[in-house]
Amino acid sequence: MKIPPVKGTRDFYPPQMAVRNWIIDGWKRVSRRNGFEEYDGPIFEYLKMYQVKSGDEIVEQLFNMTDRGGRDLAIRPEITPTLARMVNQQINSLARPIKWFSVPRLCRAERPQKGRLREFFQWNIDIIGVDSVLADAEVIFATVDFLREVGLGPSDVKVKISSRKLLGVFLSGIGVGQEKLDGIYAVLDKKGKLPADTFEELLKEQVPDKDAAGKILDFMRVDSIPEVEKLIEADSNERIAWNEVKNVLAYLEMMGVGEYCVYDPSIVRGLAYYTGIVFEVHDIVGELRAICGGGRYDNLLKDFGGPMVSATGMGMGDCVLEILLREKSLLGDSISTREIEYFVAFADNVFGSHVYRLAGELRRRGFSASFSYKPESGLSKQLKEASAQNAKKCVIIGQEFLEGRKLVIKDMGTSEQEVVGYDDFLVSLERGG
Amino acid sequence: MKIPPVKGTRDFYPPQMAVRNWIIDGWKRVSRRNGFEEYDGPIFEYLKMYQVKSGDEIVEQLFNMTDRGGRDLAIRPEITPTLARMVNQQINSLARPIKWFSVPRLCRAERPQKGRLREFFQWNIDIIGVDSVLADAEVIFATVDFLREVGLGPSDVKVKISSRKLLGVFLSGIGVGQEKLDGIYAVLDKKGKLPADTFEELLKEQVPDKDAAGKILDFMRVDSIPEVEKLIEADSNERIAWNEVKNVLAYLEMMGVGEYCVYDPSIVRGLAYYTGIVFEVHDIVGELRAICGGGRYDNLLKDFGGPMVSATGMGMGDCVLEILLREKSLLGDSISTREIEYFVAFADNVFGSHVYRLAGELRRRGFSASFSYKPESGLSKQLKEASAQNAKKCVIIGQEFLEGRKLVIKDMGTSEQEVVGYDDFLVSLERGG
Repeated sequence: MKIPPVKGTRDFYPPQMAVRNWIIDGWKRVSRRNGFEEYDGPIFEYLKMYQVKSGDEIVEQLFNMTDRGGRDLAIRPEITPTLARMVNQQINSLARPIKWFSVPRLCRAERPQKGRLREFFQWNIDIIGVDSVLADAEVIFATVDFLREVGLGPSDVKVKISSRKLLGVFLSGIGVGQEKLDGIYAVLDKKGKLPADTFEELLKEQVPDKDAAGKILDFMRVDSIPEVEKLIEADSNERIAWNEVKNVLAYLEMMGVGEYCVYDPSIVRGLAYYTGIVFEVHDIVGELRAICGGGRYDNLLKDFGGPMVSATGMGMGDCVLEILLREKSLLGDSISTREIEYFVAFADNVFGSHVYRLAGELRRRGFSASFSYKPESGLSKQLKEASAQNAKKCVIIGQEFLEGRKLVIKDMGTSEQEVVGYDDFLVSLERGG
Repeated sequence: MKIPPVKGTRDFYPPQMAVRNWIIDGWKRVSRRNGFEEYDGPIFEYLKMYQVKSGDEIVEQLFNMTDRGGRDLAIRPEITPTLARMVNQQINSLARPIKWFSVPRLCRAERPQKGRLREFFQWNIDIIGVDSVLADAEVIFATVDFLREVGLGPSDVKVKISSRKLLGVFLSGIGVGQEKLDGIYAVLDKKGKLPADTFEELLKEQVPDKDAAGKILDFMRVDSIPEVEKLIEADSNERIAWNEVKNVLAYLEMMGVGEYCVYDPSIVRGLAYYTGIVFEVHDIVGELRAICGGGRYDNLLKDFGGPMVSATGMGMGDCVLEILLREKSLLGDSISTREIEYFVAFADNVFGSHVYRLAGELRRRGFSASFSYKPESGLSKQLKEASAQNAKKCVIIGQEFLEGRKLVIKDMGTSEQEVVGYDDFLVSLERGG
């Protein structure tokens, strides 16, 4: 009985697993050095968790189920609702600022396509309890800190920064009602992803007034900071929102990643819960979907039954990132799936017990060690096996052992051999040996 | 709107996450030094994957769902079927022996109780393509290598080793038909977990003959090796199976973990697919469920549509293990959730840009660095924040910087301070500084 894997999922054989680990280890390392602590939640939550604020697209893509107790559950399509739930549960005991990261496995029933799978991993970093846009800058810095570390430079990727607040104030200013904003954001977010006429059709549904629609499109085109400066009045709400954008850019400049960052008013983000600074990272060529996105969501904890606490964060999936890293040849074929420090070989079957003893001893001391499962095969076959396993050194137990309790240590890189006493060898192992 | 977590799942706040990481990092480290390569599969598979060979208990506990395309899926309750599927898919190109490990998240709709949750993590190691019981010994060695590393000695835990093959030959010998074996295994596996009379009732259903039932119970009681030796005839199928048990014990003795291991004929294992050596690790006190279990399953790949390839493996969940480690005080409260090497503080707001620049510079060089989000708070408050974050050192940018581009470096452990030039400090950072 042969059963295939489910469409849109991935099997991680050791070579693919090594790549996944390489990416995720990088995310974790950069999160930690930027001062974030790791958290995680369950793989499934109550279905209604995702019906609160995640937006229609996500709700339509849920993998949901009814358990034996009649509860409606869903596999998590994002981790932010879980984060909000967890923080709310302990809001009075958690020291602020809360700086947390996570690398959840997420599932969405999307149509599988380039950079989109039904199951993926997503790096999430969030800062909760900081009103200042310094926190938004820190989230963006950590994002760039990772991209830079894996070798993506300012000529490969660009961080496009904008503000939901600025857009909201602008829309109110041209007479758009508060209740229409969410719908308009969802449409504007699709601007770059749809053919121009389809987009204009959708916009017309939300903003029937031609003049207003034109103004919105103009607003989303002006990305030169001096020009925006000229358009925005002093002491206005627009000015307050615009100053936030400028401050974020200034902080990022100070932190040394200014050359990655630009103001781009076409960035809106699809999710309903953003309230301030929003951003996306795109490849410069512009062929791929966004590598990551994020922003400020000051109302989300309250929407999940908690107090009003400000928050800002970012999510980066592994699929688009991996495609880009491959295109840029930044993922070498050289990520090893196994690292054997010592392969213990025996010149004759009679040394078997010593082989197992020494392998056990090496592992107990923290070294990776291996041996052949075929005691009957000769030494040259075992050396081949050691090579195939990429062992660094081979320890050969043979005649020298019988005669004087000595081992032959063969460096598999240089092929050099030396003879050492068994006990001296064990002493030399005290790490570093 | 407040939504609770789903019963039987866990929220991993940073302190709990640190414990989970501590356990999983140990599993991964020990797997690698024992020569295993990591793999993983999707979180869900086709439902029928688990209806082939997993046994009734697991089938009843599946979290299953029907996706929008009408496919019947289930969240994985174990990873062995995925392993069999993946190995079968590439059976002709994978170099043998295949030594793989994985740490999957698994879900089972069990009644939540001590050591049993609906969602948990399980360390899996498997060796595929080796007929010799040397592979079974290696799996058991790796298991003990981990237990020993986390501080569990032979007076804390015991590896109880038995053989499905030996039991099968014995049962055939007393006239039990082949078709009855799976049912009897499932009952015998429950011996230690049920009240004596309930167990005897169940056994009677499977083995109505009183004399035969008595012989089975006798067999499961004789755990002294010399006594078993006396009972088993030379040149019999029983002798072949028994020699395998003795060989495994001998290998484990050679590998240096003999004092952990005993022959225990009461070990049967519940899953239907075992064919040879089986084992479980129990705490000596015997209060907890098995810490882990495993064994040989030579027919599973064939059952999943592949060729006949021998295999042996082990699974260890995180729940019982964590309880035992806590009981033995082997999980310190000291697992840190965050490690900050440098907290960059400023004596005055005017130094802000330098603080962000230096923090960015430190992180770029791979150091963990942090700073306060409250530029208006004074130095002493920042030092308190640095303490709260467990920062090792504080770098203070103040008057010395204005006057001579110098930094004050404060060791937060000893409270000692030294003044260093900005550029000298950066040079000293070239790792090791």
